[in-house]
Amino acid sequence: MSIVKSKIRTIPDYPRKGILFRDITSLLLDPEGLALTIGTFVDRYTGKGITKVAGIEARGFIIGAPLAFQLGVGFIPIRKKGKLPSETVSQEYDLEYGKDVIEIHKDSVVPGDRILLMDDLIATGGTMIAAVQLLQKLGAEVPEVGVIIDLPDLGGATKLNKDLGVNVFSICEFEGH
Amino acid sequence: MSIVKSKIRTIPDYPRKGILFRDITSLLLDPEGLALTIGTFVDRYTGKGITKVAGIEARGFIIGAPLAFQLGVGFIPIRKKGKLPSETVSQEYDLEYGKDVIEIHKDSVVPGDRILLMDDLIATGGTMIAAVQLLQKLGAEVPEVGVIIDLPDLGGATKLNKDLGVNVFSICEFEGH
Repeated sequence: MSIVKSKIRTIPDYPRKGILFRDITSLLLDPEGLALTIGTFVDRYTGKGITKVAGIEARGFIIGAPLAFQLGVGFIPIRKKGKLPSETVSQEYDLEYGKDVIEIHKDSVVPGDRILLMDDLIATGGTMIAAVQLLQKLGAEVPEVGVIIDLPDLGGATKLNKDLGVNVFSICEFEGH
Repeated sequence: MSIVKSKIRTIPDYPRKGILFRDITSLLLDPEGLALTIGTFVDRYTGKGITKVAGIEARGFIIGAPLAFQLGVGFIPIRKKGKLPSETVSQEYDLEYGKDVIEIHKDSVVPGDRILLMDDLIATGGTMIAAVQLLQKLGAEVPEVGVIIDLPDLGGATKLNKDLGVNVFSICEFEGH
């Protein structure tokens, strides 16, 4: 098992019975865990012509901001509805029950941008697909999406690749949901 | 005016009429702005015996996580109610209308920890005071709180110093609210 994976703890029955919640706070709290996680992304994306890094609220900020700083590029927060103060573009996506919306500042992307999109985890991919659509709608190329954890049984990474042509890179995988 | 301050834009009448919202997304989007912001904190706190960095959801994650990575220590997310999956300690604080609660994982602090607390901005200081109280309750020393922006007319920094004995370091100040 990779060092990163070994530092992620599993909380049973959270947020509800039957779910094994993969908790990255134990990884972030560990200096080696945090360094290895961010370092893996920095190594992968250095010298790849990345112009900006975007992170999805809230855990994606914890991964995306250090990566942007290390790559020497700017950071874009993709946020829940009503949190960004200037002109936004928004994208609706399906939840298990109901719908949700994420937003991005319209002026955060310029034509020719090659933007990495970061989050902690990909499951069914709903939020991630909506975030890629926002970036693409504004004219950005999204060469890859980076996450710490992929839950391949939920099919999000496959869907992103098939529907939007975007590769998903993950540091580790967990079976089940 | 400092370079950091010059890259923060002001959105009038957000979130409601009469408020001048200081928007750091323009600063984060700018590679020099992000580098200078994080670099200022890294320079200030390197070699000061800091054992962990805590950030307040959500913008505090964007500042705190790169700082923790650079200092080679772990990162603690302080979150809104119900977002942390393991055992938490919580602290209530007053809003302008009503109350709110923030939480921290109980096992994220050990006795002897010297923890920096980071957020983007301090205004009246309500959230920040609650966050310091959480860290102190768990046995941490909080040598300083770091923010990009202080709004000194709202008195939060003074209150933190007077009530909790914690110094507030800010990169820049804006008059008014």
